[in-house]
Formats: sequence, structure tokens, C-alpha cells
Amino acid sequence: MSRSYSRLITTPAAARAIRDASRPFVSLLTDFGLRDPSAAICKGVVLGIAPEALVVDISHEVDKYAVRDGALLLWCALPYLPLGAHVAVVDPGVGTDRRPLAVETGRGDMLVGPDNGILMPAARRVGGIRRVHLLENPQYRLPVVSSSFHGRDLFSPAAAHLAVGVPIETLGRAVDPRDLVPLDWPEPTIDAGDGTLTTEVIYVDTFGNLKLSALPADLQEAIEGLELGDRLEVVSATGGAAHRLTWSHTFGAVDPGDALLYEDSYGRLCLAANQGALAEQWRIGQGTKLTVRRAT
Amino acid sequence: MSRSYSRLITTPAAARAIRDASRPFVSLLTDFGLRDPSAAICKGVVLGIAPEALVVDISHEVDKYAVRDGALLLWCALPYLPLGAHVAVVDPGVGTDRRPLAVETGRGDMLVGPDNGILMPAARRVGGIRRVHLLENPQYRLPVVSSSFHGRDLFSPAAAHLAVGVPIETLGRAVDPRDLVPLDWPEPTIDAGDGTLTTEVIYVDTFGNLKLSALPADLQEAIEGLELGDRLEVVSATGGAAHRLTWSHTFGAVDPGDALLYEDSYGRLCLAANQGALAEQWRIGQGTKLTVRRAT
Amino acid sequence: MSRSYSRLITTPAAARAIRDASRPFVSLLTDFGLRDPSAAICKGVVLGIAPEALVVDISHEVDKYAVRDGALLLWCALPYLPLGAHVAVVDPGVGTDRRPLAVETGRGDMLVGPDNGILMPAARRVGGIRRVHLLENPQYRLPVVSSSFHGRDLFSPAAAHLAVGVPIETLGRAVDPRDLVPLDWPEPTIDAGDGTLTTEVIYVDTFGNLKLSALPADLQEAIEGLELGDRLEVVSATGGAAHRLTWSHTFGAVDPGDALLYEDSYGRLCLAANQGALAEQWRIGQGTKLTVRRAT
Repeated sequence: MSRSYSRLITTPAAARAIRDASRPFVSLLTDFGLRDPSAAICKGVVLGIAPEALVVDISHEVDKYAVRDGALLLWCALPYLPLGAHVAVVDPGVGTDRRPLAVETGRGDMLVGPDNGILMPAARRVGGIRRVHLLENPQYRLPVVSSSFHGRDLFSPAAAHLAVGVPIETLGRAVDPRDLVPLDWPEPTIDAGDGTLTTEVIYVDTFGNLKLSALPADLQEAIEGLELGDRLEVVSATGGAAHRLTWSHTFGAVDPGDALLYEDSYGRLCLAANQGALAEQWRIGQGTKLTVRRAT
Repeated sequence: MSRSYSRLITTPAAARAIRDASRPFVSLLTDFGLRDPSAAICKGVVLGIAPEALVVDISHEVDKYAVRDGALLLWCALPYLPLGAHVAVVDPGVGTDRRPLAVETGRGDMLVGPDNGILMPAARRVGGIRRVHLLENPQYRLPVVSSSFHGRDLFSPAAAHLAVGVPIETLGRAVDPRDLVPLDWPEPTIDAGDGTLTTEVIYVDTFGNLKLSALPADLQEAIEGLELGDRLEVVSATGGAAHRLTWSHTFGAVDPGDALLYEDSYGRLCLAANQGALAEQWRIGQGTKLTVRRAT
Repeated sequence: MSRSYSRLITTPAAARAIRDASRPFVSLLTDFGLRDPSAAICKGVVLGIAPEALVVDISHEVDKYAVRDGALLLWCALPYLPLGAHVAVVDPGVGTDRRPLAVETGRGDMLVGPDNGILMPAARRVGGIRRVHLLENPQYRLPVVSSSFHGRDLFSPAAAHLAVGVPIETLGRAVDPRDLVPLDWPEPTIDAGDGTLTTEVIYVDTFGNLKLSALPADLQEAIEGLELGDRLEVVSATGGAAHRLTWSHTFGAVDPGDALLYEDSYGRLCLAANQGALAEQWRIGQGTKLTVRRAT
């Protein structure tokens, strides 16, 4: 995800996001689940520090420990959210020496979370990283920091303080952005000679659509002269029959149940079935490697 | 659902809903799921346009593409929600030529969603349809409208603008309410001669209760002299043994685990088991046709 | 849960919770599920009565009818939430003569729910019970009270009125706190002679961690001279092999996938696997009785 995107969206949300300071904005993204009280507790901690804050949940149903999923969802959501402090906690390393961070973006957001790559794509998408500080100052943590719930004790308090205007540099020492842990991201392989694009399923959304690591530009580069309506085939690296489908602009361009490859609403490549769940139809999940070529 | 209801509830929410314009109200109902960031993105878009808005989620866990479920949930919720703009997006036709709508209700709400019937029962329940306009004006959409995420690009921006007072007629051309797509609704069959009511399971709630398409008045009409405590039997159109149960006022009137038929809290007929999940006990799901008669 | 806790947390949320009356706070905890509209309807009812209220969901995914789960989650969350009115509805007795209550706590919160024990541990945790009143006054209910949805018709209206300053004694007659239904709670058994602690799994969180009814002090009392890093074994009362694990301060102290026993972030005993789901690994669920001793 280190490449630039063809369609960085500038939304009204972004444009009008310079809110007046009287209503700080905090968003929360975690793998805590909605049955447990953890997400509500983070919200309560934010409101205890910033009673006027508006707190919005991005998702608390990220797959457990799936740092890359969390990174992708934050990347999707951030351009549409108001300027503010954004907490992202998918944190298999909680209680170890992985570093807790606050990242200031070019747009002016404060991204708060562990140093495991989760904040990186989103930061890049809203103006890049301006500066990074550790969350060290006990004044901006809860009085007791547990070993297993840093979302509550460390990240939420930091975000709340940042949202009400505490300067980032008072939270702890500066970190060189080049020293941050990068996000593990499976880069696609383009073989223009063969006319193939090999890419990985990076996320299966709740509709059963398969999000790919490759972008439309990669596909165009791999398959010369590709036009909407062209027929393609997709083969899984793990074997099995080739699936045939259409390179389409929208679901409605194919019959209900039929498969298509399209540019999704975030500017990414996505495989789907019109009104169906392709992941179930094809029995394909996250991490599967796929090769796309012209149908013969 | 075109008939009138015996018990249209006028709540404090409805009565006091004429809020001052300084805090616009927007509700969201979708089948987007809570794991994906789509619902949060819609909220972000609303807040970008209407920073002072109060945004409440009705549900984002509507079964995928289940327009009728969405219509029923909105019908249940709307009388209890403040006056405002209400977005309902269960939209299998996204990216086709189905029309995007804003519907003004008699109560003064603005219902926003696709023209597939999802808005109809709720509109009828809060004073009926006053007028309808298309969402055409690019000024009230996001700058780029994708082919697959109209909740974000089209419906949420329209609702936010309506919530802050943009007049509905500026959004697009007027539509004759009689030209709207009606909701597909399975009407019950009353056979007073036979003493039977045949009706469909229209919704299975998270407790495993079976909501029926028929109303208490239908049951009273089918079964002469029916009184609370009377024993009934229910047969599935797909065969199997008859289930015996009690026509009751409340769960506690039968033993734990026992089945009852009762008027639910929305004034509809519902089958349930006291402290149990009847859908699992009977292995019956949505769409099942049932015949209710006196137990022999 | 009638014993005192070694680590009652005083958070910024608690400290700064004496909010000015202009923004009443209401939290909601139910087993209504997030697919159905019930939770949103409760929120709508609160906002109809208290339009300026801030309403926060603790959880609506409590296991159906699991009063003890609800009590535990409220106990976990309440110290981190702002002072306010807190609704807890896990209510298998809805529609029977179980009593609806408002409980004023030492901290100044108003806890609202059925008299089935769900409010008790949380009340004890924030200063104890100051006084209790029944929800009787029709002025503070919805005009029609259904037999199956007291969350909407009775508890949410009461909480909203309390949140905006209606005095608790106007809601109904006083109840002697000693007459309240206690929470059913499985007390652990300490056998210091044998060096064993026998305790029950009271909650399996969404990570698959097993929360125990016993506290760290119980373990220390049962096993003389226990120190972090010591090896333990756990046997299920239902038989099966003994599981070996480490008494640890944090997940990271054991290898990924390995089991540990630790003091969780609420000061309770918890069994977990580092980056794994122990409930699945061990095939152990809520209600299982376990005996912990030194590994031999």
C-alpha cells in the first residue's frame, strides 16, 4: 500500500473538517467485539477527559489480531471522517515492548495506536505523516495502566487529550517516521508479457465481496487494451477450475448471481457476485492468491 | 402493509420531536454490516455536511438485500425516533436505474433511500407521504458518485442537507407518490368459515420470535370468540406435526419453554417461546407459511 | 460478587463525572441484539424526553436472558462511564410481576432495570446503593406499556427523566435495598491445605478468554508463595487431561498460542492464550468448573 492512489477522494467531510475546537472529534477502530464492554469503556474514558467530544465507532468487529484488516478499514474510512483524533487498536503485541504512538497527519489528524503498521496507510492517505511521538507521559494515561487493555488505559486517554488540544510533543519523545514498523502488504505481480495479474485477496467484506491487493491501474498494465465488458478468467494459486467473469463498471451490468471484477468505491479492485456472496460461491477466503487474465 | 393499524403509537418522542433547528437529527438503517466501515463512513459524510447533527443507527445488520426486513424495521422504529432525516439503504439495485428518493412524511420527516418499497410502510405510519423528490442535484451529492456505494455518495449527503434545512424540492424533480415501487408484502388469508388464518413468517428477530404478516384483528376475524388463554394450533404449509400453543397477553402467562401467540409491542402477531428461541425449537424460518386454528 | 475488590479504579471519567446538567448522560446495556431495532428505539425514546442527552451503548449483544453476564459487563464498564442514568435490561421476567427499579448509587448514578440482580454488582462498585424506588408513576412511562418491551415503555423513559433531573422518589414507592433480588454468583472454593482453588468460568469474552469467578487474592490464598512465572495446572470438573500454563503478568510473557493465567484489566482472574482463543483450544465454555493447582 506504499503506492499512490489514482483517486484520492476529497470529500465535504474533509473540506469542512476544520471544525471549531468546541466539539472535539474522536473515532474508534478496534477488534474488541461488540458483545464485550471494551469499546464502550474506551468511549467512556474519552468522554471523561473530553466531555464535549463527539465519538464515532468505525468498527469494533475487525477480525481478532488482524492488523492489516484494521489498517485497510481505517484507510477506507478516514477521508470521510471529520478532522480529529482517531484511535486504532488491533494489537496482538499488547503488554510487550511494541511502542504506543501518536501520528500527526498532513491533514491535521492525530492517529493513535500501536507501532505495528495499522496507522500507516491511513496516514499516507490524508496528507502523510507530519510527525510522530511516543505515548509516554503518565499525565495523559489512566492512573493505572494494565498489561492487557491499552485501548482503555493508554490509547483512548491520549486521543482524548489530543482532541482537546494537548500538543502532541507533550505526550512523549519524537520518533523518526522512517523507524516505524511498516504494514505487511502483499504486492501484486504484473506480467504484461503473459497478460496476467497475480494478486491476493486482502479482505472479504460482509457482502462476501473479495477485495484484492492490486489496483485497477495494475490490471490495465497487465492486460493490454482492457475495456469494460471484456471477459476475464480468474484462477486460484491453490488450483481448481478457472472462474469466468466480466470486467464491469457496476453490479447491475451482470445478471443476478453472476460474477464481476470492478473498481470498488474506494478505487480498488474487487471481485463480487451481483446480489450474491462470491466468497461463499467460490469458497475463497482472505489470503488466497489469484491470477487474472483474459478469458480464452 | 397497506392496511391501517389498530394502535398507531404517539410517543413522547413523536410529541416532542419538533426540535429546534440547531441540532439536526439523522438516522441510518442499512444492510452494510458492522464489521465493514461503510456505516461509519455514512456517519462521517453526514457530519461533514451537518457537523451539529445527532446521528443514530437503527440497524446495520439487516439481512443482505432484504428490502422487506429493512422496511419492517424502519416501520417499527420511526414512531419512536425524533423528527429528522432517516436514511434506509437496502439496495440490491445499486448502480442500476432504480431511482434515489427523498420522501416527506405527514409528520415532517424526510425519508431517504432507493425506490424499492423500503420507505413505504414507515412513511404511512407517520402521517403518510406528503411529497417525493428525486435525488438529482449534484450539489447535494459527493463530488464523485461511485456505482456501488450510494449510501455514502448520494443518500447520506441528501439526508444531511435535508436535516439542516435544504428544501426537498431543490434536490430534484417531483415524483407522483402513486408511481413509487410498492413494497412486496404477503397478505394473510382469513377463512372465518373454516376458522383459520393463513399467514407468513415475515421476520425472525434475534430472540428467535416469529413475526407474522397478519395482525391481531385478522386472528379475531378468523376465529370467532377468541379469548386470551385459548388454545390454538399452528400448522406449517410445508407439512409436519401441528404445534399447540396459547393465545396469551405475555410470555409469563406460559411456562418457560412453552409456545405462545401474542400481540407484540408493535401491535403485530408474533409466535414465541417463553425464554426460548421458537425459530430453533420449531426449525421454522422467514417465509414459512403457517395456518392458525383452534386446537382440537 | 459481594466481596470487596483489591483494585477499585478511580478514573478520570469518575473524577470529572460531575457534569453540568446541560448534557445528561444515559447508557444502555441489553440483550436486544444489534440486528433488531429495539436498541435504537430505546435511544429514540430517551432523546424524545431528553433531547440534549448523550446516549452511549455499553452492549446490546449480551447473551439472551443471561442476567449474570449483563451484571458483569455493567460492573466492568460503570467506573469508566460518566455519571448518569444507566439502563440495564436483561429481563427474562418481562411481563411478570418482577419489579422495575431505579437505584441511586453512592457515586450519584441512577441505575435502571428489573429487580433480578443485574444492577447489584455495578451499584456496589460505584459507592453502593443509596436508595431504591419502584418505577410506578405513569407520568414517567410511555402512554401505553406493552407486556413484552419494558426497555422501551418503562426503563428508557425512567432513565431519561432521571437524567434530566426528575427526583428518584417521584418515580414510585421506596424499596428497602435489603429486599432486592441478589445476583446468583458462583463463589470459588479455596483449599489451602490441598493448595487448590476451584472456580467457575463466568464469562467467555469475544477473544475466547475465560473469566473466572475467583479473584487473584483467592489464588494467592490457595497456593502458598505463588510467584509470577510459576507453572500451574488446571483440571475441569467434567474430567479430561490437565492443562499446564503459566501464572503471568501479561500475554507477551508466554509464546504465541501458549496458555496463561493472569489478572485481567478489571482485577479479576482470567485464563487466556497469547494471540489465541483458549475457549476453542480447550473446548471449555461458560459454567465450567475448574480446579487450579501448582503443576507437578
